[in-house]
Amino acid sequence: MSLYDLLPINDALNIVLRVVKPLTTERVATAEADGRVLAEEIRSPENVPPFRASTVDGFAVIANDHGAPRKVVDNITAGVADRPALQSGTAARIMTGAPLPDGADSVEMIEYSQLDNGSVTFDRRVSPGENVRPIGIDISSGDVVLQPGSIIGAPEVGLLMTLGVTQIECYRRPTVAVLSTGDELVEPGEPLRPGAIRDSNRYALMASIREAGGVPVSMGRAIDDRDLQTRMIREGVDLGDVLITSGGVSVGDRDFIKPALEELGTVHFGRINFRPGMPLTFAEIGPKLVFGLPGNPVSSLVTFESFVRPALRAMQGDPHPLRPLVEVELEHDFRRPGGRLEYHRAVVRYSGGRLRARSTGLQISSRLLSMVGSNAMLVLVEGEGTLPAGSVVPAVLTGPIQND
Amino acid sequence: MSLYDLLPINDALNIVLRVVKPLTTERVATAEADGRVLAEEIRSPENVPPFRASTVDGFAVIANDHGAPRKVVDNITAGVADRPALQSGTAARIMTGAPLPDGADSVEMIEYSQLDNGSVTFDRRVSPGENVRPIGIDISSGDVVLQPGSIIGAPEVGLLMTLGVTQIECYRRPTVAVLSTGDELVEPGEPLRPGAIRDSNRYALMASIREAGGVPVSMGRAIDDRDLQTRMIREGVDLGDVLITSGGVSVGDRDFIKPALEELGTVHFGRINFRPGMPLTFAEIGPKLVFGLPGNPVSSLVTFESFVRPALRAMQGDPHPLRPLVEVELEHDFRRPGGRLEYHRAVVRYSGGRLRARSTGLQISSRLLSMVGSNAMLVLVEGEGTLPAGSVVPAVLTGPIQND
Repeated sequence: MSLYDLLPINDALNIVLRVVKPLTTERVATAEADGRVLAEEIRSPENVPPFRASTVDGFAVIANDHGAPRKVVDNITAGVADRPALQSGTAARIMTGAPLPDGADSVEMIEYSQLDNGSVTFDRRVSPGENVRPIGIDISSGDVVLQPGSIIGAPEVGLLMTLGVTQIECYRRPTVAVLSTGDELVEPGEPLRPGAIRDSNRYALMASIREAGGVPVSMGRAIDDRDLQTRMIREGVDLGDVLITSGGVSVGDRDFIKPALEELGTVHFGRINFRPGMPLTFAEIGPKLVFGLPGNPVSSLVTFESFVRPALRAMQGDPHPLRPLVEVELEHDFRRPGGRLEYHRAVVRYSGGRLRARSTGLQISSRLLSMVGSNAMLVLVEGEGTLPAGSVVPAVLTGPIQND
Repeated sequence: MSLYDLLPINDALNIVLRVVKPLTTERVATAEADGRVLAEEIRSPENVPPFRASTVDGFAVIANDHGAPRKVVDNITAGVADRPALQSGTAARIMTGAPLPDGADSVEMIEYSQLDNGSVTFDRRVSPGENVRPIGIDISSGDVVLQPGSIIGAPEVGLLMTLGVTQIECYRRPTVAVLSTGDELVEPGEPLRPGAIRDSNRYALMASIREAGGVPVSMGRAIDDRDLQTRMIREGVDLGDVLITSGGVSVGDRDFIKPALEELGTVHFGRINFRPGMPLTFAEIGPKLVFGLPGNPVSSLVTFESFVRPALRAMQGDPHPLRPLVEVELEHDFRRPGGRLEYHRAVVRYSGGRLRARSTGLQISSRLLSMVGSNAMLVLVEGEGTLPAGSVVPAVLTGPIQND
């Protein structure tokens, strides 16, 4: 009945990743760049540290100048500079992070010092260079410290601020318009008339978009009217870098999304050999992307996770747009899926030295409880009968691994 | 020199987790609750689906009513209701998600149908109940669908909206005041005078706070003046549920944080047997928590990750406030840390069926590059010599596992 081939999941994903391109870049304050992807190479304009710094609280000394008590001639706190050079036979009290005076080559820790009448002796002998951070030990001037494609987290913010780089070039976050379709939908806050269901997908997808680093824009709901849906698709690709629709991609008389996308642009695929979410549709309209997600709640979120999220990550310049793929051991028997490859929602935990998975239960595509609390999708190949407990299968990790 | 015992890391963490309590709760719009932790039990007020729904596009029929062509008497689209009951010998065109008419017990897919002159015949025989979602199959009225402590993600948003639960009780996000201390600090955008360094920690910590679900409030910098720092600590615990200071916790003459905390409240510990970040200090002032983090950039972020983040997660009601702990195989020799347990920053990838780790290089506590791009902290026990490649060590996963 459908004109569209049932595309293997990897073929479909490859099409998506071939079509998507990183968005343009923009200048972002480093202080607010966490979560962004860097679009430029950052070279250090200077040495870190820019001076020889003490790593401890103690006394700056000349290491080979040992023997007699040393006269304490200075007190160097962090942040000061241009102190007089240290002469043989003397020491300078120095704080962690403070610059060594010229002449000094090491710092003895205060824990090993005896101060008496303005002179200091030590319980041990310090080595030249001990407790000193040499100039440039952390970073040398001119070093590449961050590559394009780096994801900015707390350490990267700290590193950039250390170097005085308060603005950076990052990829734009994609704006993603979300449109629900279907005569049966009502707003979640409205009374539920007979035969109707609440439009939960749009809100769940907006949360997924945020998690993926995108900026969701709600377009509300469209009833099953071809002209209206066509007009709203046009509007959606004007509004966003990406448009996501939910529902209306099956083969029913009132499934208008595929025909509308064919009319407005290029449909790359319209069915995938995959459960949940076979009718997933992917199209380009001009420079914009459209994902026609199935209306079943689980199908829409799993196809988002598997196809839209990688696209949104790639648009942000993430060089690793896919979730981690590992292998896990089944904790119980799993029924093999009939007919199509299945992404079986599961909980993966690290237990007894290995990654182990248990099902979230009944996997029908309407049952959102099959996703609640899950952190993985097990890749189950179609077949008859059961996969016995102890079998090892691939798993896409969608969240942190659990511990016992 | 220090009055404080060197506390083993687990003892210190246990103290923190014993002291922290979940914050109060607040009403949050479900549409904006992603990332929050649920503070109430959610029971379904209704059955899902509330009516018998078709899972396919096709024809609603009476399964045992087979044989002759069936007259097509109705066309039931999603969202309609109160259609006439189906009589023997008839069928109703029906869309995915539409309610079955009374009398019908199954739906035959359109793919298997032949429509001729207003009557339909099928290439196969449908079974009673086939392609029908029974009332309550996804969720039964009264079922507990979410427990307190559930972390709200896209599936949870979808589930709640499906049930019409548009507001939920969630734990408050902790407000976290951040204060940097030290005469040597200048703003990252300011010129760097000799002997000074840029205040990068405050910005890195604010990014870490956001990642942990907290709300950072910058208090700027305080020079090394005991009265000033004492006053700002008071102000910080007024402002936030938690105050984080950076620097000033060593044993130097100008390390005023510990004495100020002793004056204002109760110091639970002031040193940990841990690298990087030995001088970590944890105190309570009234109902508020204070973490005195070391000033070295790596020490401040690693102690945040290891102690402050679990506290912030627990304050948000997260029942699993700790990061995943796994075991990894070393890809190369690692030098055992002398003197203290080390959290060695590393990159963990899944390769050849196992989790493997390589170091991010020189681990001195000033070198932020040792954290850049890392997704794990390896737990290396103190000792002499090297841990050879192939050794298996515990690892705290701080980000997604990489693939080859």
